[in-house]
Amino acid sequence: MPLITALDVIDVRFPTSRTLDGSDAMNPEPDYSAAYVVLRTDGTGPDGSGLAGFSLLFTTGRGNDVACAAVRSLAPYVVGRSVEELVADVGALARELTWDGQLRWLGPEKGVMHMAIGAVVNAGWDLRCRVDAMPLWRVLAAMSPAEIVAQIDFTYIDDALTPVEATGMLEVAFAGRDARIGALVDAGLPAYTTSAGWLGYDDAKVERLTKQAVADGFTMMKLKVGADLVSDMRRFRVARAAAGDDVRIAVDANQRWGIAEAIHWMSQLAEFDPYWIEEPTSPDDILGHRTIHDSVAPIRVATGEHVQNRVIFKQLLQARAIDVVQIDACRVGGINENLAILLLAAKFGVPVCPHAGGVGLCEMVQHLAMFDFVAVSGSMEGRWIEYVDHLHEHFVEPVIVIEGRYRAPQRPGIGAQMLESSIAEFRFPDGPAWTTSPS
Amino acid sequence: MPLITALDVIDVRFPTSRTLDGSDAMNPEPDYSAAYVVLRTDGTGPDGSGLAGFSLLFTTGRGNDVACAAVRSLAPYVVGRSVEELVADVGALARELTWDGQLRWLGPEKGVMHMAIGAVVNAGWDLRCRVDAMPLWRVLAAMSPAEIVAQIDFTYIDDALTPVEATGMLEVAFAGRDARIGALVDAGLPAYTTSAGWLGYDDAKVERLTKQAVADGFTMMKLKVGADLVSDMRRFRVARAAAGDDVRIAVDANQRWGIAEAIHWMSQLAEFDPYWIEEPTSPDDILGHRTIHDSVAPIRVATGEHVQNRVIFKQLLQARAIDVVQIDACRVGGINENLAILLLAAKFGVPVCPHAGGVGLCEMVQHLAMFDFVAVSGSMEGRWIEYVDHLHEHFVEPVIVIEGRYRAPQRPGIGAQMLESSIAEFRFPDGPAWTTSPS
Repeated sequence: MPLITALDVIDVRFPTSRTLDGSDAMNPEPDYSAAYVVLRTDGTGPDGSGLAGFSLLFTTGRGNDVACAAVRSLAPYVVGRSVEELVADVGALARELTWDGQLRWLGPEKGVMHMAIGAVVNAGWDLRCRVDAMPLWRVLAAMSPAEIVAQIDFTYIDDALTPVEATGMLEVAFAGRDARIGALVDAGLPAYTTSAGWLGYDDAKVERLTKQAVADGFTMMKLKVGADLVSDMRRFRVARAAAGDDVRIAVDANQRWGIAEAIHWMSQLAEFDPYWIEEPTSPDDILGHRTIHDSVAPIRVATGEHVQNRVIFKQLLQARAIDVVQIDACRVGGINENLAILLLAAKFGVPVCPHAGGVGLCEMVQHLAMFDFVAVSGSMEGRWIEYVDHLHEHFVEPVIVIEGRYRAPQRPGIGAQMLESSIAEFRFPDGPAWTTSPS
Repeated sequence: MPLITALDVIDVRFPTSRTLDGSDAMNPEPDYSAAYVVLRTDGTGPDGSGLAGFSLLFTTGRGNDVACAAVRSLAPYVVGRSVEELVADVGALARELTWDGQLRWLGPEKGVMHMAIGAVVNAGWDLRCRVDAMPLWRVLAAMSPAEIVAQIDFTYIDDALTPVEATGMLEVAFAGRDARIGALVDAGLPAYTTSAGWLGYDDAKVERLTKQAVADGFTMMKLKVGADLVSDMRRFRVARAAAGDDVRIAVDANQRWGIAEAIHWMSQLAEFDPYWIEEPTSPDDILGHRTIHDSVAPIRVATGEHVQNRVIFKQLLQARAIDVVQIDACRVGGINENLAILLLAAKFGVPVCPHAGGVGLCEMVQHLAMFDFVAVSGSMEGRWIEYVDHLHEHFVEPVIVIEGRYRAPQRPGIGAQMLESSIAEFRFPDGPAWTTSPS
């Protein structure tokens, strides 16, 4: 019976700050990075090659070494485990790591340690996908309602959603799974693009990229705002003129504002018909989001990429503070916690529009959105997966977005596996991308 | 002009799990530990010795290496700085670290990275105290209302407390500062003891230690609860009988419960007159605390040792979800953020009863409670500092608790400096305490 033999962690960083791709009001110069995780085994996969689980924890540069250290600290919890037992119940590993009596002090369930736990849990899911020879969305869609519910930790959320309710919701959606799998494989899921709207882009580039996005078939796009109101109004006017009235345009302040500032700013941007305001303020401020929500309606309020765990999502939903749940592939304690968040969103009738971009976030989070469509919400209505057109070339199975829609991935895994050549090139600080001066 | 020359970080761990001191419902076997921080300079202190700033980040064992890695990652932000500029405005360093566009992804403002930022900020305050040749509480008590307000980041809290309001509150308290300093130096501040109530202690030990606590002059104590209701009722009965009706006895569930469980459990413990229920559930659950608060009244609800930042404290206060604010010396982004939390608590009229224990938490947090008494709340009413009687012998200036009261510390610093001999003995994993088998 194969065993886990090692937990390898590699610091991979892309020098994206040199081009201002990814610039926003809070992240003026990000270097998109990943603590890249490989769960090695002494087993062989269905294809005859060495069996391993791949995962990553996305960061924006400095601190990626801390993320690597946090993942490495978890090696004693996984090395030596039976692969068969691990893939039979990844939730057991998630619980063990989350509730470790000593590690818990570093969170609990938030920040670097929680993200590191998520990365290791996700590597366990990647391993399971390879054993099952299916992409994650299909692995999840093949599980019974009871199996899915057994993977979820209901601690601190059972006042909003009980296991019995969750099972009932999944059972209601069960009948339509096969038809929705067919629809998904045929037509994919809607995407929206952020590629046109980075804060570091000038008006001409925003106009050109907006027109390109519409020509490419996107029905929704997003602009970064929050640094300067006059500039935001100008850029939004440019984008709206280029996009026309039928394309939805959301705005994203990346937590730049306090409550009063958010309300004022959105009152000024309202004339351009923003579809949602994303991250208007601190992701921790549930009551603040409710106040903003009540003040800017009918403009929707969205958040989630920095929401630390299911407990904060639960409250944002209980308080009716947000209209859009933006799950992230790497923020919370792994796929198991994201299953809880998908079910909470469905319980409160709020659509999930995943955050993506960064390094591999599109590749990973699409699986969760597809599972949500197939087995939880059962709907594409009001749902888009974020799409940012960069760094996909470094992945073994890059996302395929055609006519503004994500196509269902087909290879086994959770989508995180990178090309060996990319890892070698962008390894920090010793890869050629970092040791050679930029041309 | 002296410069910061190095940021040294040492992994120090005490094998407390061997005795079950510190055991509670969530931390059955903690090894109290510290990422110990020394900000070295090329300057000389007022006493002629080398000038350095000392700080620490408390953890409960595993993960202390991750905390060390997080602190080390901050060295480039401080090494080479002018000592004079740093101590003139520690808040500027706090802002720079907290709002770093790349590090922020790892929080924001929560978990290991935020605690590491707090540890470095606090080392800056320790340096200031040594330059000023005063203990922290006196340094803070010597600052004008405007100087204090300038040290606080009001981002995300100005909907609850504006700089103008904070200044006004400090000005009102200003007149009485000298008299309160006199009262503090004469009589100290009330303490409560947790030493009698660890979950791993049997009934006889609880009874003996409770009687000892009362004989030692404590007017308040605390029991750990949450693992087993029948056992909790038995232990509370033992403690109540030993303490008599006049001694306040609080209980602490260390986040063990969901909402319904907390309410049920406290309904069963109510007959023993608990003074407060501490950490009934997740520290992230503001709405949950409000529900518990409204259901268990008049029993008070307390939390804070795991509350990640000022934004969560703000909401706990706005929602009237807690009756006691438990600041911690090492959880948030340093003394600057704790100043914000003290002012928020005062604004909402909620007493601050600091969490302590662990490694050096008593030594450090007493300064903030004393500043709160002297310059913010101006009151001892309903306020106690937690006291746990262990590991003090490792500090250069151990706390002095006499007749159940913390006496004001006198040496320059924030209280975190450890003895070189203790560091050498308990250094992990190479100190003799770890390389020699327990006797």
